Amino acid sequence: MAKNIKTRSQDYAQWYLDVIKAAGLADYAPVKGCMVIRPEGFAIWEGIQRDLDRRFKETGHVNAYFPLLIPQSFLAKEAQHVEGFAMECAVVTHTRLEKDPEKPGTLKPASPLEEPLVIRPTSETVIGHMYAQWVQSYRDLPILINQWCNVMRWEMRTRLFLRTAEFLWQEGHTAHETAQEAQDETMKMLDVYADFAQDVLAIPVVKGTKTDSEKFPGADTTYCIEALMQDGRALQCGTSHNLGQNFSKAFEIKFLGRDQKQDFVHTTSWGVSTRLIGAMIMAHSDDEGLIVPPRVAPTLLAIVPIYKTDEERAAVSEFIDRLVASICGAEAKRQVAGDIHSYFFDLSTHQKVVVDWRDSRPGDKQYHWEQRGVPLRIEVGPRDVQGGAFVLKNRLSRDKLIVKLDEISPAWIKAKLEEMHHALFERARKFRDDNIRHAGTYDELKQILADKGGFVQCFFKPDRISEAKIKEQTKATVRCIPFDQSGAEGNCIFSGEPTRTQVLFALAY
Amino acid sequence: MAKNIKTRSQDYAQWYLDVIKAAGLADYAPVKGCMVIRPEGFAIWEGIQRDLDRRFKETGHVNAYFPLLIPQSFLAKEAQHVEGFAMECAVVTHTRLEKDPEKPGTLKPASPLEEPLVIRPTSETVIGHMYAQWVQSYRDLPILINQWCNVMRWEMRTRLFLRTAEFLWQEGHTAHETAQEAQDETMKMLDVYADFAQDVLAIPVVKGTKTDSEKFPGADTTYCIEALMQDGRALQCGTSHNLGQNFSKAFEIKFLGRDQKQDFVHTTSWGVSTRLIGAMIMAHSDDEGLIVPPRVAPTLLAIVPIYKTDEERAAVSEFIDRLVASICGAEAKRQVAGDIHSYFFDLSTHQKVVVDWRDSRPGDKQYHWEQRGVPLRIEVGPRDVQGGAFVLKNRLSRDKLIVKLDEISPAWIKAKLEEMHHALFERARKFRDDNIRHAGTYDELKQILADKGGFVQCFFKPDRISEAKIKEQTKATVRCIPFDQSGAEGNCIFSGEPTRTQVLFALAY
Repeated sequence: MAKNIKTRSQDYAQWYLDVIKAAGLADYAPVKGCMVIRPEGFAIWEGIQRDLDRRFKETGHVNAYFPLLIPQSFLAKEAQHVEGFAMECAVVTHTRLEKDPEKPGTLKPASPLEEPLVIRPTSETVIGHMYAQWVQSYRDLPILINQWCNVMRWEMRTRLFLRTAEFLWQEGHTAHETAQEAQDETMKMLDVYADFAQDVLAIPVVKGTKTDSEKFPGADTTYCIEALMQDGRALQCGTSHNLGQNFSKAFEIKFLGRDQKQDFVHTTSWGVSTRLIGAMIMAHSDDEGLIVPPRVAPTLLAIVPIYKTDEERAAVSEFIDRLVASICGAEAKRQVAGDIHSYFFDLSTHQKVVVDWRDSRPGDKQYHWEQRGVPLRIEVGPRDVQGGAFVLKNRLSRDKLIVKLDEISPAWIKAKLEEMHHALFERARKFRDDNIRHAGTYDELKQILADKGGFVQCFFKPDRISEAKIKEQTKATVRCIPFDQSGAEGNCIFSGEPTRTQVLFALAY
Repeated sequence: MAKNIKTRSQDYAQWYLDVIKAAGLADYAPVKGCMVIRPEGFAIWEGIQRDLDRRFKETGHVNAYFPLLIPQSFLAKEAQHVEGFAMECAVVTHTRLEKDPEKPGTLKPASPLEEPLVIRPTSETVIGHMYAQWVQSYRDLPILINQWCNVMRWEMRTRLFLRTAEFLWQEGHTAHETAQEAQDETMKMLDVYADFAQDVLAIPVVKGTKTDSEKFPGADTTYCIEALMQDGRALQCGTSHNLGQNFSKAFEIKFLGRDQKQDFVHTTSWGVSTRLIGAMIMAHSDDEGLIVPPRVAPTLLAIVPIYKTDEERAAVSEFIDRLVASICGAEAKRQVAGDIHSYFFDLSTHQKVVVDWRDSRPGDKQYHWEQRGVPLRIEVGPRDVQGGAFVLKNRLSRDKLIVKLDEISPAWIKAKLEEMHHALFERARKFRDDNIRHAGTYDELKQILADKGGFVQCFFKPDRISEAKIKEQTKATVRCIPFDQSGAEGNCIFSGEPTRTQVLFALAY
């Protein structure tokens, strides 16, 4: 068992932080609640970005960049939006610092702004303001823009990746001629997120609708994908909002329609964030540390040489050269950072194979790559060189497989990685399915939440007051009204009234 | 002549803004001095990022993300740094807004911070703080990290891309065991920038050293690449700083050396920004609008169909399908955004060929793509279909070439684009070389600056007082001490003292 990582059963919250620390993914920053995403963590984010960005572009979207700072008056223009967001914003009030004559060696704010500015918590307002200038007629529609950026929400309780004051995300903002087109776009992007979560991060998700009390402030309807973590808590992995004409009316985004009449556009917004890295960690990692899904892993395979003498080193090195050539091709580009040599396995995804020539014990190096969640590991010593074979270790199953050097090809490695992706997804899917339980009554709901956690499915008529009471009593919230409904009728567990609506309750991050 | 674009000779500053507007690259944001980078402009930034990021990775660097907000006390830790940067920072003083009871419908800042935070103007300080925690021994070195992010400097006079309060950039921050390694890194990254500017943006640059009065606040030495714009002003396109031990002493980044002694690391930093887009516009564009260098152009080729009847449309469409297949391959992915169809020419760079099926006049559509600087344009009408040929228009030379459909291949198009890259570079190089003039005296320097602009080469002994006086009298600054020095001796144009140092003076953006 890893000494630097608490087990999940001992202390799940500490396990999560220990896994992040052991893998070198992130640190807390000097400013409270902010994080530093270290290279190992950022490379995972780059993998996520690369794949999602391709999906956005394939669905006709383009990227742009809108400003970080928003006049505070913009937030007040959409009534629900201000309630939901204004209360947790970083506020810029000055544009200069000057030396403080009263305290030598220190600075104080100077040049106060006439109107304070907020650091964007999300950009519907400033983007709405710009769209109003860009759109004149139906010919200017649709606008299909995405932006990758940082946002800030001043959170009280923070947790690396899951909830930090500043985080990185993408926010799509589209404007359409008709309500139907906006609805189609909202659903299309929810599907993009669900496919990405499942096909790339190997995280099974439930697609559904948020109740009114959980929807985005300013949206007509919010749709989401919800995943289940290993401690039985739910985690919202992405949201897609149909904003109707709420923001177009607040920001006067009007267009001359085909009928020669002025109308307000219909807008949508949708986003996922660095929170996905938190979801990935909590869905897959084990007591030994991080497990990174192969399709997004920056490092696919780590090779650790073992030798004592110079002759052994030469023989092992020559064997590893052949091994790397068999995996990455003879022409593979090498990147040297200190004593770790990297070779690109796939140039289009920047995924790498590394050879760890650092001067430390082979056991420590194995441990190093295991805790970083690298899918496959190989140790090569003099005996392997003699036998023309080596041991391949699988991070997920922890299997050891003896493989002959001449069996190896890029396709062979690719197949192993694909196998691991499917095994990872299946394991998470089974866990999720095993942890969806039905409650026929409110008492049953409370019992399941207290004993076992997970998703609790039940008949429920969503309304703000009931949901607030249930949250107060159980801490659980309606995660979503799943799209997948049986259509059967039952009684609302809270009001007892008949309903055909079934929801998923859970404790959530 | 384009009606919506002033000519360069009429009003160069207005020409620049008109080109940006006509190409849809950027807009001013509602917050003073900030900009919105529109999709057409952002796609160019993505091209720049993609190419530079590959170069950074090939030289062993990894990406990471550090926080946006920096405690104001950090800025004060490095004495020169605070002088250079603290005076123009956006200051966050509150973490909440609340409804203003005195003015219904408006908000006011609440929850003041104990210590104000600044939005990063650059990140040496906060990164230094983190490196101090990450580095223990020489085994932890070098650290070779880059970050892509937004920064803010509250500028008084702003100009889209060239000088805005918020801008996007990359900042590399490295830490090394020895002074020599830090110096090698500084020079290596300057070369990466110079190669990129010349090989991708087709902008010839002069490599050199900044004088003390122009160097980065906190650096031992700043190196730069300087380019010449069409109005004879210089533009700094990138800088690479050897920070020596200045920041490592201020932030206590210590390590246990191979000699078992504690020492401070040697650091570097280097950056380029969205300003490069401004450089690209000013170096290449003409009175008809934008010209985008082919290696970074998001759209390589625009095809405009011409037809009147449905039969003509069908024939033209069929011809265009064959044309696109010949250029992008039969399997090319199509992306539909309204009536503009895009096909990927190169998946690794996301560069596209577009077919403009919008319902407007062919002339207007030609104009549209011309003003956006697309390197090649093709019009296809019924007569072209009959003849099995079409007219290819070259954005740079404005040549029209009749080409047979069966001559076309991806390699053929690629060769045309490469030809244009070289022609663009040669034109800019010739202009630059024609505008380097020698001044033997201070009067000559003044005369050349007043009459012709451009770079003025002269013998000069750099010192802060002389440079300040010259700047006051001529507005010109020493752009750099070029690496390329003849070694001859002459007399300083200002002090008359003998010197072997020749510098380049210029008016600059």
